[in-house]
Amino acid sequence: MTTQQLIEQIKLKKSFLCVGLDVDLNKIPEYFLEQEDPIFEFNKAIIDATHDLAVAYKPNTAFFEAYGIKGWISLQKTINYINENYPVIFTIADAKRGDIGNTSSMYAKAFFEDLNFDSITVAPYMGKDSVEPFLAFEDKHTIMLALTSNEGAFDFQTLDVDGKELYKRVLETSKTWKNSENLMYVVGATKAEYFTEIRKIVPDSFLLVPGVGAQGGSLSEVCKYGMNDNVGLLINSSRGIIYASKETDFAEKARAEALKMQEEMAEILQSK
Amino acid sequence: MTTQQLIEQIKLKKSFLCVGLDVDLNKIPEYFLEQEDPIFEFNKAIIDATHDLAVAYKPNTAFFEAYGIKGWISLQKTINYINENYPVIFTIADAKRGDIGNTSSMYAKAFFEDLNFDSITVAPYMGKDSVEPFLAFEDKHTIMLALTSNEGAFDFQTLDVDGKELYKRVLETSKTWKNSENLMYVVGATKAEYFTEIRKIVPDSFLLVPGVGAQGGSLSEVCKYGMNDNVGLLINSSRGIIYASKETDFAEKARAEALKMQEEMAEILQSK
Repeated sequence: MTTQQLIEQIKLKKSFLCVGLDVDLNKIPEYFLEQEDPIFEFNKAIIDATHDLAVAYKPNTAFFEAYGIKGWISLQKTINYINENYPVIFTIADAKRGDIGNTSSMYAKAFFEDLNFDSITVAPYMGKDSVEPFLAFEDKHTIMLALTSNEGAFDFQTLDVDGKELYKRVLETSKTWKNSENLMYVVGATKAEYFTEIRKIVPDSFLLVPGVGAQGGSLSEVCKYGMNDNVGLLINSSRGIIYASKETDFAEKARAEALKMQEEMAEILQSK
Repeated sequence: MTTQQLIEQIKLKKSFLCVGLDVDLNKIPEYFLEQEDPIFEFNKAIIDATHDLAVAYKPNTAFFEAYGIKGWISLQKTINYINENYPVIFTIADAKRGDIGNTSSMYAKAFFEDLNFDSITVAPYMGKDSVEPFLAFEDKHTIMLALTSNEGAFDFQTLDVDGKELYKRVLETSKTWKNSENLMYVVGATKAEYFTEIRKIVPDSFLLVPGVGAQGGSLSEVCKYGMNDNVGLLINSSRGIIYASKETDFAEKARAEALKMQEEMAEILQSK
């Protein structure tokens, strides 16, 4: 999917909501456990209930890998289900990969070709040759960690490097890489006041924003400082939507939570 | 496996060789492609030919994920084969994972419990709460990227943070984390002169060292500056061993390359 197509979907749906599919078998309605593939069946129900309110889905690979081969089958079925039934949805493999060049190429092949995701999250620590292999794929997007939403973000990301925080150096340096127009960035909502500075460095890039909801970030604050002319934001919510209820009404409740966010987003878009 | 057991194996085998299992179907003997699971069959042959010369095997997950579910079956069969047939071998999942706390817990579960690896490589960018979930597992080891062997290492890892390179800050900070005794570190052989400084910060930790051989690092230089009283080094070789030949003699040639390294290691250990 091209960035332009993503922007069109955002305008059409009046939504820049991304739903995180981080399925923990201990947190879904118990009757799913009797099914052959509870993770996929749960995802399918969530997707069917929210697809008109969200522009993106983000399965986190950890929650699939934890169940071994069965988990990978669930991941493949989930991405195939989205691609077949809702082809205009932007798909994100939240995998946080990154390795030396020839190895990153294998990861890119795994997620962009074998699984056919539109994008993947990657970690920047190993630098240019660990990220460029992902950037080489046309109409695929590489979402690099910049400033994350967790406490540990302050361990290294905000350290002062010659008068400038590390995450700013990461943003600046990445702009010099080949095919850097295929980059997006992860910026946590819990640090809304940082968005002003970040937009000075990457005014046009899409930012994937975790941390609204369960982790305490504010949607209106993020939009105030982080939105650009093309919206430029994908706001992720995982637990707040998919675990809105553990009863038979889980899909209905998930839709209600997604709708609440979509309506807030529509209002923000209109007031722009 | 405990660190003490690893040290005993190193002394017994007079080897601190780790063989990297990065299987690319384009680089193995063609007749493997006719088999049902060429990756596993190739790994099995390499392991059988080298197990008495190596103390560790390191499958890189990218090379399995690139083949989708079939690849994950190969990974599971490979780790099971090692654990069942060579239980004293130290196993490393070269996965370079790392995410927010509850997600890292899922990765730890995937690799330490479901697949039963002794260790996993992780990336430090997201800080303390992204690594501590791995450290909580008893007799399991978390190998954190410090200074990698690729060119991109100089993009961020060696940046000056208040008069000290970032990778040194990563090493120092990680020592304050809970269960930090379960940490090991990745330090590339291509930067042998850095080992002296690194040993001042982590004198006792094991270092996993890629970059000898194909990437140009020198074994004797690494040992000169990086070895401690318990050896404290695992030297990885992937391509130099597993792709020593593409003909029917590939296992024999792989053994010959592994033997060459083991003999050099035995000599170094004796001269200590």
